[in-house]
Amino acid sequence: MRLELVTVGAELLLGFTIDTNAAFLARTLSEIGVEIVRRTTVGDDPDDIVQAVRDALDRTGAVITTGGLGPTADDRTRPAIASLFGRALRMDEAVMAGITARFKRYGYANMPASNAVQAMVPEGATVLGNPNGSAPGLWIEDERGRWVAMLPGVPHEMRTMATQVIVPMLTKRYATNGAVVLSRTVRTTGIGESALAELLGDDGRDTVNGLPLAFLPGWEGVDLRVTSHDLPRADAVAALDGAEAKLRSHAERYVYGRDAENLAAVLLDLCRERRLHIATAESCTGGMLGERITAVPGSSDVYVGGVVAYEDRVKTASLNVSPDLIREHGAVSEPVVRAMAAGARAVLGAEIGIGITGIAGPAGGTSDKPVGTVWVATDVKGDVRATVRRYLGDREDVRRRSAQAALEQVRRSVTGSA
Amino acid sequence: MRLELVTVGAELLLGFTIDTNAAFLARTLSEIGVEIVRRTTVGDDPDDIVQAVRDALDRTGAVITTGGLGPTADDRTRPAIASLFGRALRMDEAVMAGITARFKRYGYANMPASNAVQAMVPEGATVLGNPNGSAPGLWIEDERGRWVAMLPGVPHEMRTMATQVIVPMLTKRYATNGAVVLSRTVRTTGIGESALAELLGDDGRDTVNGLPLAFLPGWEGVDLRVTSHDLPRADAVAALDGAEAKLRSHAERYVYGRDAENLAAVLLDLCRERRLHIATAESCTGGMLGERITAVPGSSDVYVGGVVAYEDRVKTASLNVSPDLIREHGAVSEPVVRAMAAGARAVLGAEIGIGITGIAGPAGGTSDKPVGTVWVATDVKGDVRATVRRYLGDREDVRRRSAQAALEQVRRSVTGSA
Repeated sequence: MRLELVTVGAELLLGFTIDTNAAFLARTLSEIGVEIVRRTTVGDDPDDIVQAVRDALDRTGAVITTGGLGPTADDRTRPAIASLFGRALRMDEAVMAGITARFKRYGYANMPASNAVQAMVPEGATVLGNPNGSAPGLWIEDERGRWVAMLPGVPHEMRTMATQVIVPMLTKRYATNGAVVLSRTVRTTGIGESALAELLGDDGRDTVNGLPLAFLPGWEGVDLRVTSHDLPRADAVAALDGAEAKLRSHAERYVYGRDAENLAAVLLDLCRERRLHIATAESCTGGMLGERITAVPGSSDVYVGGVVAYEDRVKTASLNVSPDLIREHGAVSEPVVRAMAAGARAVLGAEIGIGITGIAGPAGGTSDKPVGTVWVATDVKGDVRATVRRYLGDREDVRRRSAQAALEQVRRSVTGSA
Repeated sequence: MRLELVTVGAELLLGFTIDTNAAFLARTLSEIGVEIVRRTTVGDDPDDIVQAVRDALDRTGAVITTGGLGPTADDRTRPAIASLFGRALRMDEAVMAGITARFKRYGYANMPASNAVQAMVPEGATVLGNPNGSAPGLWIEDERGRWVAMLPGVPHEMRTMATQVIVPMLTKRYATNGAVVLSRTVRTTGIGESALAELLGDDGRDTVNGLPLAFLPGWEGVDLRVTSHDLPRADAVAALDGAEAKLRSHAERYVYGRDAENLAAVLLDLCRERRLHIATAESCTGGMLGERITAVPGSSDVYVGGVVAYEDRVKTASLNVSPDLIREHGAVSEPVVRAMAAGARAVLGAEIGIGITGIAGPAGGTSDKPVGTVWVATDVKGDVRATVRRYLGDREDVRRRSAQAALEQVRRSVTGSA
């Protein structure tokens, strides 16, 4: 099944916002065999919206739009598409009641008058519930079965509606036993792209077991993605399983997960099974490591807490790092990072302590310790290991890579693959 | 001057790659008064490429494409557009020599045969140099002056060519009286989109001082963006200044910055001027507040550090929060958040303490304290203020909005606008 996507918003055309919605929708829909064959982005001009949607309907008869459903004057999708379908807009009392109740629930006595426009529904259109926002989605269809689904542009609203509303609707409407586009990502970290390519040898040149292979480097590591384009679901899954096994056979040591798995979540599961708790001591990452761990729902049964020891005084007072160590070796040094990890474990009360100290830049580097120098220590029940890396890249890059390296160092210790 | 952008690549349609090229081009070209009025993304099918480019040429007569110029079989842009213009592809010896030399320079004895296709140039087309890659860009133009510029899809290659080749060409070709597209963003937080629209009244409906206005809601707040499309630079700046002043006159209380300014950086500057230091105590945000503050280079002269008090035990041991308070009121409560802020200030040694405790979800909510309930306290030299909010959205959204609200609460205290 093929459809087109029309994304609406001047901010997308002007480059102020990067269109992440389109990528999310493409991935989500490809899982049920729905292929987005074209994406068109237009601004807030109603004529442009009408023209783009009409052309897309002429080609495929099936269109999803995102954006332009808000309460303000630059939100034009609803009236533009109503006019394209020759339908009048009518106030929908149920939608209005829902919007009003939503404002009440969040403590506003009165709904701003401008929000009433979000209750205007084209004649004959179906309202699509939006659990996370005030603007509902809309489904409009003509007598020939050509349809447009209008979704909001706010990412978390759009995502919930896509998975909870659109996917079930399209699955029901276009049930086939046909081919799906499925991919599998094998996530590695701690090894560069070309070293990984060498490790894979002939099995990692262009294809694995005949499936196309892509190398996707990023700050979390290098992801390896294989894709099956033309098999029915069961066959595609079997082919992807085979390709994953082959990739793992070459690079197992560096593989921490698959698909969207996050290293922090993987580590939390490993610790939960082993009844291990984690405490953190961060300097240059400033809380990012704690943030990544606690981004995972349910992290509270493993993560105790941490100290962001930005000033050296805090390293001493809150982590019991000896001021002599700092004076003698500097805050970015092996003795200090070991003391930070051990201090986090002891002071906060956990089996595992993690310490990070480094120079994220842009200032603060020296010839001995250039920007990008980062020490990571892990203390697992008294077994303390420290490593140093020198990262390229900007401040954010250095910090992100440091947090990832710290999580990986614990993963390897805990699984005995260090 | 208006043009359309056609981006080519299955990976864009499949959602594996987010199209950052389009945003870069839009921003870069708008600076010289060139407006991208539509963006179309198609896969690697030559017919789709031809159709999209032809339609775009019919509308504007000016098209930039990105992607599909590589050496592999799925790179179809060159032959597709050559056929659209009715031109044969010919081997260009100079391009061939350049590609061969490039391979030699990087230590390859022989160029892979597949790269020869990158030396094929449509008759009458102009070769556009690509300093960072082997695939040159191409400029092709018909007898009516309608043109297509083909750029590679690899971001760092495309960016260099856009700034070094395309911008000078278009500036020369479309020399006008110097109209530019410039925008100004006024950043607000702590007020919703529709309430903000009401506050702006007639000055915020569609335009401000005749300049189009866009409302851009996100987790940092609502950005107000005004854009000048058809004035010379000096006049555009004056018009934007006037529009910004008018927006501020209505909403000053909620305005924390402009354009790309980050609330954390704004707050750090305010504290630096006033010689104030910040310490943090985070529960549900798990380090995100510290991470946001320390993401700003130079934050170390204001930010002392923090405690991530995820377990209640850590709130007591590291922040001196009385266990009785937690027992009596719960960890997510006004008394506890006040004690956290005061504890951070006292224990870590700073003029300002910030406390955050809440229920980020998805689990942990009760009827009294549903998911999304977040308390924020700020202690500025002993003046402690606490507020509670109930956020919508998922875990990440709740956490991001909480950190932003905490920064804003300090900003208002420090500037006396609380």
